[in-house]
Amino acid sequence: MNIYDVSRKAGVSIATVSRVLNGSPNVSDRTRNLVLQVMDDLGYTPNVFARGLGLGTIQTIGIMCSDSSDPYLAHAIYYLEQGLRGHGYDSILCCTGNSLENKQKYLDLLRSKKVDAIILAGSKFIGQRPRDNDYILEAAQELPIMLVNGYLDGSNIYSTLCDDRSATHEAASRLIASGCRSILYLYTSHSYSGMGKMQGYRDALGGNGLPVREDLIFQCPKDILSARDLLLGLHATGLSFDAVLASDDTLAVGAVKYAHAIGRSVPDSLSIIGYNNSSYAVCTDPELTSIDSKIEALCTTTINTLMTVFNGGNAPSRTTIAADLIKRATTKF
Amino acid sequence: MNIYDVSRKAGVSIATVSRVLNGSPNVSDRTRNLVLQVMDDLGYTPNVFARGLGLGTIQTIGIMCSDSSDPYLAHAIYYLEQGLRGHGYDSILCCTGNSLENKQKYLDLLRSKKVDAIILAGSKFIGQRPRDNDYILEAAQELPIMLVNGYLDGSNIYSTLCDDRSATHEAASRLIASGCRSILYLYTSHSYSGMGKMQGYRDALGGNGLPVREDLIFQCPKDILSARDLLLGLHATGLSFDAVLASDDTLAVGAVKYAHAIGRSVPDSLSIIGYNNSSYAVCTDPELTSIDSKIEALCTTTINTLMTVFNGGNAPSRTTIAADLIKRATTKF
Repeated sequence: MNIYDVSRKAGVSIATVSRVLNGSPNVSDRTRNLVLQVMDDLGYTPNVFARGLGLGTIQTIGIMCSDSSDPYLAHAIYYLEQGLRGHGYDSILCCTGNSLENKQKYLDLLRSKKVDAIILAGSKFIGQRPRDNDYILEAAQELPIMLVNGYLDGSNIYSTLCDDRSATHEAASRLIASGCRSILYLYTSHSYSGMGKMQGYRDALGGNGLPVREDLIFQCPKDILSARDLLLGLHATGLSFDAVLASDDTLAVGAVKYAHAIGRSVPDSLSIIGYNNSSYAVCTDPELTSIDSKIEALCTTTINTLMTVFNGGNAPSRTTIAADLIKRATTKF
Repeated sequence: MNIYDVSRKAGVSIATVSRVLNGSPNVSDRTRNLVLQVMDDLGYTPNVFARGLGLGTIQTIGIMCSDSSDPYLAHAIYYLEQGLRGHGYDSILCCTGNSLENKQKYLDLLRSKKVDAIILAGSKFIGQRPRDNDYILEAAQELPIMLVNGYLDGSNIYSTLCDDRSATHEAASRLIASGCRSILYLYTSHSYSGMGKMQGYRDALGGNGLPVREDLIFQCPKDILSARDLLLGLHATGLSFDAVLASDDTLAVGAVKYAHAIGRSVPDSLSIIGYNNSSYAVCTDPELTSIDSKIEALCTTTINTLMTVFNGGNAPSRTTIAADLIKRATTKF
């Protein structure tokens, strides 16, 4: 039970409920009575902690991420916190790890704190088995759930996504156009975003008349040296490939290091493309061509959508943002 | 006015005050009466938001950092959030940027939220001019202030520090012992930590009978390409140096890229040492020798100290942790 329920039941904006709670004169008697009646019906008691601050809500958003030290998520948290702050909201951060049990536990904890909404940052919160997402659907009955680069169909759930599938489709197509025929695909996880990226790669091969070779697709920990060693191991088995497309820049850095280790020239003998256009992309020589997944835009849009929800506006349940392919020196195009 | 004040005035632990608030039977009548009397004297009203959760406090710690997307601070936030969670505390995150005005604003905001303590992560919160730290001293009259890798002398302020000065002293001494005579020093900021690092470098030169040459000390933005370009520019002026000691791994990566760009061999013609032993250290070929600044240990210790404060124990006002020099391939030792 929170101010959001009152707003929804009364059919007025959160701002209006807040004005009623604060005794603002800028509310008609009719609206005031309606809101007070709904509060009474729902048994809603304004949160004294929040009211002590002169606010109708605790003006606090829960942010969940699997690991705030991951560079992509660290940037997400930064942009989300800054954006929410700009709208007068605090952020409670929860680093959940990857187990479903902990994700559920933290979501329940944030709900018990009566936060105004919860943002799930990163696509690892959406499971492939529908029942693994039930806890999110349940929470959404109580407060808005915002997904940053994840998608789940449901009432009161709002997704802002990078078009990962188109991004890898374009990247793989450009590799093929530049003469590559055996593109090795490295990925870190089967998250929603991870599946989209891989599908783009598969579609590009098919669309260009090339076979999808399962022996060129490998999962790898999100770690530079793991990726290097995986490729060195594959090289030792005699596997031949002329490009590496990676779902994360760290893996692409590992590919550059693999090439250095065995003396393959990049991009002449091996093309490499990373993902996220992080600062890792400029660590290597040559510097990485990488896909900019627009994390700042994803976060800004997420917050704009949330504010629209709070104000009772018509918020889009799904917004997609296009990625950019940033060309540097590990590709021939 | 918060539970901490009550605990201090009554001379009992936070846990005891909490038990009184929650009507626990495990408190003697004498203690219960004392705590209730102090609450009355102080005009303390238990926070209803917190009490609704069955807690005597809001069990929430404010974490301030200048920029959560900085890799060092991103790791700090991760370890702090996880550690606090383990003790049942939530974390409210504030990314303050570097202006004094905003730091003050966010500290006041967290105080108004009645958080139980505030952690200042990173050494940028401590100014060199004493008056710039007055707002921290003032806040410490109300609640514990924990500094992660910063130091400020004052009541109710607790510092956990990496011994940055000894770390750069050792690094520079090892460079000198391996034959380097012109060690260029790159640094990003004049923070508390930044000044310690530079002093260690200066002391090592003096201690080894080498002059401290101001023309070999440069400030540089914390950015790989800025560092590379700075060194290329210095090279063009004819400045000669046989080692680079950097206050951050990003600058050291820039030094490796500078060496690649002009064909200097590392470490034969140029030795390089970075700081933080971040994942950047393994991006380059050769991989970076770097100083491990023990961020996880700093955060764990900070939280242990805070819990000692909460429990009314004798918490150390200053704890120093030694760094480790991690040898990889950019040095001759």
